[in-house]
Amino acid sequence: MENACLIVSSPSKMQRLSKQWTLKKQTIGFIPTMGCLHEGHLSLMRQARKQTQKVVVSIFVNPLQFGRNEDFKIYPKPFEQDLQLCKEVGVDVIFHPTVSDFYPRQFQTTIDGNALAKKYCGRSRPGHFNGVLTAVHILFELIRPSSAFFGEKDFQQLFLIKQMCRDLWIPTEIVPMPIIRESNGLAMSSRNTYLNAEQKENAACLFHAISSVQAAVKKGYAKTAELHALAASLINHAPGMEMEYAHFVDLKTLLPLGDNIHTSSRLLLAAHIGENPRVRLIDNGHIAV
Amino acid sequence: MENACLIVSSPSKMQRLSKQWTLKKQTIGFIPTMGCLHEGHLSLMRQARKQTQKVVVSIFVNPLQFGRNEDFKIYPKPFEQDLQLCKEVGVDVIFHPTVSDFYPRQFQTTIDGNALAKKYCGRSRPGHFNGVLTAVHILFELIRPSSAFFGEKDFQQLFLIKQMCRDLWIPTEIVPMPIIRESNGLAMSSRNTYLNAEQKENAACLFHAISSVQAAVKKGYAKTAELHALAASLINHAPGMEMEYAHFVDLKTLLPLGDNIHTSSRLLLAAHIGENPRVRLIDNGHIAV
Repeated sequence: MENACLIVSSPSKMQRLSKQWTLKKQTIGFIPTMGCLHEGHLSLMRQARKQTQKVVVSIFVNPLQFGRNEDFKIYPKPFEQDLQLCKEVGVDVIFHPTVSDFYPRQFQTTIDGNALAKKYCGRSRPGHFNGVLTAVHILFELIRPSSAFFGEKDFQQLFLIKQMCRDLWIPTEIVPMPIIRESNGLAMSSRNTYLNAEQKENAACLFHAISSVQAAVKKGYAKTAELHALAASLINHAPGMEMEYAHFVDLKTLLPLGDNIHTSSRLLLAAHIGENPRVRLIDNGHIAV
Repeated sequence: MENACLIVSSPSKMQRLSKQWTLKKQTIGFIPTMGCLHEGHLSLMRQARKQTQKVVVSIFVNPLQFGRNEDFKIYPKPFEQDLQLCKEVGVDVIFHPTVSDFYPRQFQTTIDGNALAKKYCGRSRPGHFNGVLTAVHILFELIRPSSAFFGEKDFQQLFLIKQMCRDLWIPTEIVPMPIIRESNGLAMSSRNTYLNAEQKENAACLFHAISSVQAAVKKGYAKTAELHALAASLINHAPGMEMEYAHFVDLKTLLPLGDNIHTSSRLLLAAHIGENPRVRLIDNGHIAV
């Protein structure tokens, strides 16, 4: 059975609608996406459907978070398929603004995540996280969600968004949700559509690297340099894969650990595969000590 | 007769209070200040009292908007006097947070006004406007005002705040209010407390410069270079005064006009007077053609 699903493209209409809900004290669950929805997104949408009275999904490929040589122009936009998936989950509203409505010509004001926005993925993608924060901030202001749902796959993004909400007193609960993986371990991502079957097999090395590090830590290995070498070796030996970084970070600060893993932490990974397009993949996993 | 005036120092308590008002559909008028209230502030407070059901004044000397060599540490803080004035106008709440509650140690996320934040006053005070925008944004998130009142004395600040609200869809009406002046023409400012009687007389040259330029434009003068020279001459000839800048700017964009004044515009002025402290004064006026 299909549910009605309202498509709203006007930001001011979206803001009016959410204001009506808020004044009626209805809770609003929100999932910001760039479309090309997969099981990862669907898990967030289903959680919102369980937890809140109104569910809004935004579909907006945000130009501000793409670098000049990145895939903004070729980013997949299967809107009809996305709409169908939203209907199946019972989403109330798809917010689907145009770039020129979202960022009018005179647009100037941005959000700056500062130090952490320049680390890890921010190093190879300058401006990326500030672009994410700016779009998410605007979406939050239009939708005023009680809860917003983010996948842990974008772990640094999730941390920066929590930081923004805390610093700016945005009254939205940020709900982190676990990474959803393909059967071979590859983390679900809209960018996986760029990969052929063989590349998808090779890209699963990120998951294997995380699992191997987790196993090594369980066996008592704790030197970050050794564990880093293990992850790098597993990733760089997979055909076509090139590691960009591997970082062991503190869960509370997302700052790098020192020589030893002494606390619960996260292993953050980024790697590249293929040419035309050169696809950038990220993954991460919990490292328990 | 005195009115009750609640003093709130906790940001979360302020946010809960304004949420209660909003759910009861009460309009909230807000005047952000750094305290040391004068007739300029009082005119904003009285306008809020007329226009909205609840009136909140914040008193917070915002460290983020001061440069390293500026007057953060000596900024006057006559709280009891400010409280008395708020009571007389009938302010409902004074929001008076501590710096460590407003910016906890791990604070990171800031607002960036970008290009315009670096011009004019932003040139000699790098980071100043981003510091203002960040504090005002947090205050708006805590208080969620229907209307916020700003004096035109800080004309560039007013423009950047309007820009922020427009860009980030903050649903607060920004109400600009005219400059209030001493009888000699000196624009009211908390920083005037740094001046002695003689300096106050000399500082009135900013107002005389604006009036003289307005008179010259009425007589048909339109060359910005000539009018600039007139303003500079009047300011720099006043004892102890040193002009920092004079800019003729377009009212819609706040960008500098070209060779001729061809449209309604604003003359923005900044100057310095005295030593220990060296006091920075700004003023501005409408230039009608």
